[in-house]
Amino acid sequence: MLKELKNIVFKANLDLVSHGLVIHTWGNVSGRDKESGLIVIKPSGVSYESMKPEDMVVIDQEGKVLEGKYKPSTDTPTHLLLYRAYGSLGGVVHTHSSYATSWAQAGRAIPPYGTTHADHFYGEVPCTRLLTQKETDNDYEINTGKIIIEKMGTVNPLTVPSVLVNGHGPFCWGSDVENAVYNAVALEEIAKMAFYTVLLGKKEPISKFLLDKHFKRKHGTDAYYGQGNSEEN
Amino acid sequence: MLKELKNIVFKANLDLVSHGLVIHTWGNVSGRDKESGLIVIKPSGVSYESMKPEDMVVIDQEGKVLEGKYKPSTDTPTHLLLYRAYGSLGGVVHTHSSYATSWAQAGRAIPPYGTTHADHFYGEVPCTRLLTQKETDNDYEINTGKIIIEKMGTVNPLTVPSVLVNGHGPFCWGSDVENAVYNAVALEEIAKMAFYTVLLGKKEPISKFLLDKHFKRKHGTDAYYGQGNSEEN
Amino acid sequence: MLKELKNIVFKANLDLVSHGLVIHTWGNVSGRDKESGLIVIKPSGVSYESMKPEDMVVIDQEGKVLEGKYKPSTDTPTHLLLYRAYGSLGGVVHTHSSYATSWAQAGRAIPPYGTTHADHFYGEVPCTRLLTQKETDNDYEINTGKIIIEKMGTVNPLTVPSVLVNGHGPFCWGSDVENAVYNAVALEEIAKMAFYTVLLGKKEPISKFLLDKHFKRKHGTDAYYGQGNSEEN
Amino acid sequence: MLKELKNIVFKANLDLVSHGLVIHTWGNVSGRDKESGLIVIKPSGVSYESMKPEDMVVIDQEGKVLEGKYKPSTDTPTHLLLYRAYGSLGGVVHTHSSYATSWAQAGRAIPPYGTTHADHFYGEVPCTRLLTQKETDNDYEINTGKIIIEKMGTVNPLTVPSVLVNGHGPFCWGSDVENAVYNAVALEEIAKMAFYTVLLGKKEPISKFLLDKHFKRKHGTDAYYGQGNSEEN
Repeated sequence: MLKELKNIVFKANLDLVSHGLVIHTWGNVSGRDKESGLIVIKPSGVSYESMKPEDMVVIDQEGKVLEGKYKPSTDTPTHLLLYRAYGSLGGVVHTHSSYATSWAQAGRAIPPYGTTHADHFYGEVPCTRLLTQKETDNDYEINTGKIIIEKMGTVNPLTVPSVLVNGHGPFCWGSDVENAVYNAVALEEIAKMAFYTVLLGKKEPISKFLLDKHFKRKHGTDAYYGQGNSEEN
Repeated sequence: MLKELKNIVFKANLDLVSHGLVIHTWGNVSGRDKESGLIVIKPSGVSYESMKPEDMVVIDQEGKVLEGKYKPSTDTPTHLLLYRAYGSLGGVVHTHSSYATSWAQAGRAIPPYGTTHADHFYGEVPCTRLLTQKETDNDYEINTGKIIIEKMGTVNPLTVPSVLVNGHGPFCWGSDVENAVYNAVALEEIAKMAFYTVLLGKKEPISKFLLDKHFKRKHGTDAYYGQGNSEEN
Repeated sequence: MLKELKNIVFKANLDLVSHGLVIHTWGNVSGRDKESGLIVIKPSGVSYESMKPEDMVVIDQEGKVLEGKYKPSTDTPTHLLLYRAYGSLGGVVHTHSSYATSWAQAGRAIPPYGTTHADHFYGEVPCTRLLTQKETDNDYEINTGKIIIEKMGTVNPLTVPSVLVNGHGPFCWGSDVENAVYNAVALEEIAKMAFYTVLLGKKEPISKFLLDKHFKRKHGTDAYYGQGNSEEN
Repeated sequence: MLKELKNIVFKANLDLVSHGLVIHTWGNVSGRDKESGLIVIKPSGVSYESMKPEDMVVIDQEGKVLEGKYKPSTDTPTHLLLYRAYGSLGGVVHTHSSYATSWAQAGRAIPPYGTTHADHFYGEVPCTRLLTQKETDNDYEINTGKIIIEKMGTVNPLTVPSVLVNGHGPFCWGSDVENAVYNAVALEEIAKMAFYTVLLGKKEPISKFLLDKHFKRKHGTDAYYGQGNSEEN
C-alpha cells in the first residue's frame, strides 16, 4: 500500500540526517498521497540505522493506523492538523536543527535579513506564542498544530513554508515531501545566517521591495528563475 | 573475560570520535557488567588508531586491575565513584566536547531552554563547584567524583544523565554503555543550542509544565514516545 | 563548442558544493573564453545532482544564447557587466556562503584584520550601497552589476577580487575560473575569521604596511611567495 | 637524502588539511633531523593535490637549500630561528586555523579557561607584539621569529608549544613533527572553546593549582597519565 510514498518518506527521514538537520531520532517526515489523501509517516523512536521503508506507518486523515507494525511518530497529531488546514501540503517535516531551534528557543521570529531568505520565505519565519499549561497538559500535539495555524493566520503556507514553535523547534512543509525537506534545509541555512547577521549588529530587515523582487522572481506567475517550473527548485 | 563488553566499550570510544565529541585521546568510556559488577574501561593515553578491543582494561569496583596489559584511564577513580554511588548506571562517558566543555569552563549550568533539552534532561544540566587547592592536589580524580555526587544531591541520575565539572568538562552516564554515549551526544547538541539561544538574548528557561510534558512523554511510566520501551531511545 | 571551458565551469559549480559554499542551487559560476570572448555559464535552477557538462550555456557578451537547451542563470546580466567592465576577468562566481553573506546582510565591508586577508585582498572587501526601489523593480540584475562597479571605483579588480552586495551576498572573480573559485573559498574563510575577530572585541584593521607586505610578497612584480608564477596560487 | 623525514613532513602537511586546520596552501610544516640537524620543509605555494614527498626541500640551519627543485616555504626564516633558539624542537607547524588565527587577529593571548588547555599548554598561549614598520619592511620573516622568541622569554617551549603572532596566526612546535601537528590540532580546539567561553561571560582563567595539576599529571617526571611515555600523547 502506497509503496512509492513509503520509499520517499523513508528516504526523506534519512536525508534529514545526511543534511545535518537531525541527530538520533530527533525528527520526522510525513507525506500525503494526493489521490487517496492518506498519510505516510515515520514510526516513533525507531533508530535510523535499523529503520526500513516498510516500517513507515500509513494513517488516514483522522490518524487511524491503516498499515504498519509500529506506532506512528508522537508528533502525528500536529502533522494531521497541518494537512487538514492546508490542502496544498504534500509533505511535512519536523526537525530540531540547531539554528532554527535556537531561534525558537529564544522565542524570536527570523526576520528577512537578505535575499537568501527572500528567495524562500515571503516574509519573516514566524514564531508561535507559548502554549498555556492547560494546552500543554492535554492534547499537547494537537494544540501545537493549533498555535501554528493560529500564527500563520491568512498567510499562504506555500509562501512561508515554516513556522517556529516557541520553546520547541521548526515545523516545515511543502507541495510534496522533497519540497518540504528542501525547505527545512533552506530554513536552517537562513536561520544560521540570520544568527550571524544579528551578532554583526544588524537591526532592520531588508526592504519590502527587495523581498518582493526575490520571492517573485523565483515563485508564482511572473517567476523568471529556473526553467519555467517555478514551484520546483 | 567480558569479551562482549570489551567490544562494546571499545566501539563506544571510537563512536565518541565519529560523533565529533572527541579529538586525540580526549575522552574515555567505561561499562559495568550487570552480573559480576566488574568494570571495563579504556586504557590511558593509547591512540585510537592503534587501540584494539582486547586493550580494554577490566577492573573491579575498587579499581584493582584484573585483566589488561595497559594502565586504565587516568579518570578511572571518577568512574568508580559514580558506579558505586549509583547502582542504576551501566556506562560512564567523559568527553571534552566543545560546547559542553565551554559551559563547564564558564562555570555555568545549562538551563532547559527548549523541548530538545526536556526530552533528555529533566531540569538544568548542573555545574559543580570548583575544587579547593587541597582537593586538587590530593586524590584529584576521587574528589572530582565526589563533587559530582555532591552536586547531584537527591536527583535520580538517569533523569539528569550528565554533569559539568567546573573548569573541566562533562561526565555523562546511562543505563548501559550505548545509552551513556547517546546522552553525551545529546548533551553536546543541547549545549550548542543553549549557547546560540543565550546569544540571541534569551534569559528564562522553559516552564516547569513544558519540561514535565516532554520529559514524561519520553520517560517513565506514562511515556507515549517510542514503541513502549521508553528507557531505550 | 568550448567543450573544455564547459567542463571547467561544470566542475567549478560542483566545487562550490564540495567546498561548503553552496547548498541546493544557490550559486553560479561562469567562465570567459580568452580567444573568442564568449561566456559559459551555469543553467538556472538545475539541480547539481542531474546537471551535466553539456548543460552549460554558451552566451555572447550581450547575453545572447549561442548554445544550450536551458536558460542561463538568472544572475547572468550581473556576470556580463563584470566581464565587460573588467577585461582581466576570466571567471565569475556568485555564492550565498554563510559568513560572507552574513557580512553582506549586515551591510558591512570586511576589514583586513590579519595577514590571511592581506594575502588575498588588498584592502577591505567592500560592501555596495543598497539598491533603490526603482533599481530593484527594473533591470535588477543589471543594476546589481552597476553598483558593484560603482563601489569598486578605480580599484584593480584582481587585487580585490570580491564584493559584497548589500542585503544579498558575495560576487567573486579571478583571472580564470579556478582562480575565481579559489577567491570565493578564501573570502568565506576570511569572512568567518573576521566574524570571530569582531566578537573578540577587535576594532581596528591591520596597518597599511602589514597589508602591503603580505599582499605584495604574494602578488605582483616583487612577489617572493610561490615558485615564481605569483598570479597562480 | 632524509627520505623518511621527507615522508613524515609531506604527510604532516596533508594532515593539516584533513584535520581542518588549513585550506588551499595556507600552512607549512618542517622537521629537523636529530642527527644531522638538517631541516626538511614544505615548498612554497605548491598545491597539496600535486605535491609529492620528494618535493620537500632539504636545507641546512642557515637556510641554504641542499636538495629540492622548489623554493622552500616563504616562512622558512621563521622556522629556522625557532630551531636555532630551541634545541629541543623536532618539528614546527604554521597554520591559519580559524579560531587560533582569530585570537591572533584580535591581538589577544588565549587564557587557560579549563583543564583541556592545561593538559597541553602550561599557561596562556601568548600573543606577540605587533611588528614595527621597519621590522615589517625588511627581514619580515626573520623578525617574525624574533618577536616569537622575545615573547616566549624564559618559558620552556615544550611546555607552551605555540605562540600567536599578532595580526597573523599561530606558530606551533613539538619534540618531533607528529607532536608539532598534535599541538596545532590541540591549539585550534582550545582556541575554539576559549572563544565560546568568553562569549558565555567568563573573565578569569582557572587557578594556578588546577593548571599545575593537569599539566603535571600529563607531562614531566611526576606524570601519571598515559603508559609511562609521558612526552608522547
